[in-house]
Amino acid sequence: MTMLDDVVVAGVGMHPFGRFPGLTLKDLARVAIIRALTDAGIGVKDVDAVYSSNAMGGLLQGQEMVRGQTVLREVGIEGVPVVNVENACAGGSTALAQAVMAVRSGSSDVVLAVGFEKMFVDDLARTLDALESAADLEVVRGLGIQFTAIYAMRLRARIADGVLSLRDLADVSVKSHANGALNPYAQHRKKVTAEQVLESREIADPLTLLMCSSLSDGAAAVVVARAGVLDSGGRPTVRVRASQSGSGVTTDPGGGISIATQCAERAYAEAAVSPGDIGVAEVHDAMAPAELLYAEQLGFCAPGAGAEFFRSGATEIGGSLPMNPSGGLASRGHPVGATGLAQISELTWQLRGEAGERQTKRPRLALAHNSGGWLEGEAAAVNVHILERMQPWD
Amino acid sequence: MTMLDDVVVAGVGMHPFGRFPGLTLKDLARVAIIRALTDAGIGVKDVDAVYSSNAMGGLLQGQEMVRGQTVLREVGIEGVPVVNVENACAGGSTALAQAVMAVRSGSSDVVLAVGFEKMFVDDLARTLDALESAADLEVVRGLGIQFTAIYAMRLRARIADGVLSLRDLADVSVKSHANGALNPYAQHRKKVTAEQVLESREIADPLTLLMCSSLSDGAAAVVVARAGVLDSGGRPTVRVRASQSGSGVTTDPGGGISIATQCAERAYAEAAVSPGDIGVAEVHDAMAPAELLYAEQLGFCAPGAGAEFFRSGATEIGGSLPMNPSGGLASRGHPVGATGLAQISELTWQLRGEAGERQTKRPRLALAHNSGGWLEGEAAAVNVHILERMQPWD
Repeated sequence: MTMLDDVVVAGVGMHPFGRFPGLTLKDLARVAIIRALTDAGIGVKDVDAVYSSNAMGGLLQGQEMVRGQTVLREVGIEGVPVVNVENACAGGSTALAQAVMAVRSGSSDVVLAVGFEKMFVDDLARTLDALESAADLEVVRGLGIQFTAIYAMRLRARIADGVLSLRDLADVSVKSHANGALNPYAQHRKKVTAEQVLESREIADPLTLLMCSSLSDGAAAVVVARAGVLDSGGRPTVRVRASQSGSGVTTDPGGGISIATQCAERAYAEAAVSPGDIGVAEVHDAMAPAELLYAEQLGFCAPGAGAEFFRSGATEIGGSLPMNPSGGLASRGHPVGATGLAQISELTWQLRGEAGERQTKRPRLALAHNSGGWLEGEAAAVNVHILERMQPWD
Repeated sequence: MTMLDDVVVAGVGMHPFGRFPGLTLKDLARVAIIRALTDAGIGVKDVDAVYSSNAMGGLLQGQEMVRGQTVLREVGIEGVPVVNVENACAGGSTALAQAVMAVRSGSSDVVLAVGFEKMFVDDLARTLDALESAADLEVVRGLGIQFTAIYAMRLRARIADGVLSLRDLADVSVKSHANGALNPYAQHRKKVTAEQVLESREIADPLTLLMCSSLSDGAAAVVVARAGVLDSGGRPTVRVRASQSGSGVTTDPGGGISIATQCAERAYAEAAVSPGDIGVAEVHDAMAPAELLYAEQLGFCAPGAGAEFFRSGATEIGGSLPMNPSGGLASRGHPVGATGLAQISELTWQLRGEAGERQTKRPRLALAHNSGGWLEGEAAAVNVHILERMQPWD
C-alpha cells in the first residue's frame, strides 16, 4: 500500500446516548455530524461522500430508502454520493469500512460516516419486534430476542467448565459502569456494585439487567480522509491501520473459529501488528460479560483465559490493555446503527489523549470490534478496525 | 489508474420481473445469484464480498438489518463481508458502485452485487405507503406518491413550451413496450399502440397507465472482478469504464444542472469518452416519457431536442443510440432494489452480442443511468456507469 492509500480519522463527534423523547433522528444526527466536521476543521462543502448507518428507521419511524439523505439535507450536505448501509448492530462500523474503502479506491478524499438511531418510541413492543429482524425472520419470528439467550448459553457453558464465575460476570459489569460513569456521552453514568448487578432483574440466566446494554437514542459520526489532505491542527494524527469485515455462518469446516477471530487475525496481518501491541480496545459487549469472551476471540489472551486476564486488572483504564474505557455498550448505551462509530470516536479520543478522566496509558494502537445480527449462532456482520497514533507520546 | 484497478463485469443474471405470489424474496434472489455466478463461471466459494440492495423489505416483509445475509445463507455464500445498501430506486446501482469500489480499493477480487424486491403483498396499500419513504417522510407523508406528479409537471411544461407533444409521450411508450415484448425477463411483454397508451387510465395528466412503470417482484445480480482474475470463457470482456454517483439537492447555485447531468459528465470524463461514443443506454424511465428528458440530461442530444432525437429513430433498437432496449422500467417492470442491476445485465448482454431479438448494432460502449428517491424535486441518489466491450466486433 502506498502513502496515497493511507486513511486518517480526521474528526469524530457524538450526540450523547440516552432517552431523548423530544428529539428526532435528524436532531440526533445533526449534532454528531456538526461535531465531527468541527473536530476535523472542515465545513459541509468539504465532504466528498457519505455513508449513513441506521438499523431501525424503517420499522420504527417509517423512513426507508433514503434515511441518510433526509438527515444530511438538514445539515446542508448536498449533491455528493450518499450510501445508506445496514448491518444490524454492526452498521456503524460497516459505514466506516465503506468510507475507508472509498478513500482507498481513489474515488473520494474526505468521507463522512454517520450512524443514528432512535429506539425509544411510543410503544416499546415495536422496538423489541424490530430487533428480531437482526436475524432471519423466517427462523426467529415470534421466538423473542435471541441475542441475550445466545450470550447466556455461552456464558453458562463457561461457568460449567469452571473457566469463569458468576462473580466475574458481575465484576466486568461493575468495571463497565465505572468507566461509563466517567463518560459524558454514556447513557448510564452511575457506578454499580457487584451485589447490585447480581441482584438486578434476571434477563436470561446468568445474565441480569445491569449486565445488558439497553435501548438507546443517539448518534455518532466520523470523518475519514486521505492522509495529507486535511490539516490536523497540530493534534496527533490517527491513522486507519486495518479495516476488516466478515459475516454470516462461518466457513471454517471445524466450526471453531469465530468470525470475530477471523476478522481480528486479518486485521493484525493487515496492520502487521500482534494482539499484544494493542493499547486500548472497544469491543461489542452487548452484554458486559461478553467482553470476557471477546478478549479471547480477539487474541488478547489465550483461549479460556478471559476471566484470568480480566481478574489481573489488564482491562481496566489503568491496565495494560484497557477494554471499553467508554463504558462499552452496557453502560454507554446501544443505539444500534450508531454504536460502531461511537467506538471509533472513543478510540480516537484515547489515541489523541483527549479522553479526560477515562484516559488510558498513552496507547499507540487501538482496536474496535463491532458485531451485528445472528445467523445460526454466528454474527451476521463483524468489522474490526485498528487505529494508530502516528506521533510519539511526549 | 493502473491495470490492477480495472474492473470487469464477469457475470450477470436475473429472475424475471413480474408478479410471483408463490415466491419469497429468497426465492427470487437465489435464482438471480446462481445465474450470475454460473454466467461468471464461478461457484459460491469464489465470492469475496457481497453488496445487497433491497428497498422495501423492512416495511413490506418486516426483514431489516441483515436482508442480504438472509438470502445469501440460502445460496451458501457464507463468511464473506456482506453490506446491505439502500438508495430507493437507485439501490441496485449503488450496490454495483460499491462492488466496483471494493475491487478498486484492493480489498476484494470477486464481488457480487445483488438486488431483490417483492412489491406484491396482500395489501397493496402497504406498498404504496412504503414507496412514500423514498422521499423525506416529514415532507411528503400523506401527500401520496410524488414521483409521478413531478414527472408529469416537467412533461407538461415541455409540452407547453412546444418542444414535445402528447404524441411523443405515447410513441416512446410504444417503443418501450415493443422492446419489452422481446425481453423474456420483462413483466409486460405485449406491444401497445399509441392509441391504447393515450386511452389508458390517466395517472397524472399527461401521464397514463401504459406510460408508467408498475409494481413488480424480481431480482438481478452482477459479478464484478479485478481484470484478469477470472477466465472470460472465450466471451467478449466487459469492462467498467466509469462509476459515478451523486445525490440530493443540487449544489449548482443556478439550480439548472441536474444530478443526472453532473454524474454523466463525471462519468464521461472518467471514461475519457463523449456522449456520442455511447452505443446503447439503459436509463431510469420510471415513466417511459422520462426517456425524452434523460436523453437531454445525459448529453445524447442538445437541451430541448429530446423529442426530435426520439422522432429521428436514433433511440430504437436499430438506431444509432438505442435507449432501453430491455423495455426499460415501464415495460420490464420496476422491482425497486433490483432495477439498477437489471440495467447492467441488459447492457452486458448487449455488449457481448447475447441480447437475441433485442440485440443492438454492435455497441462498444454502454451507459446505465439509475435514479432513486426525491429531495426537493431532485433525485436523492443517482448512479451512472459506463461499460465497454474490450474486443472488437468481428
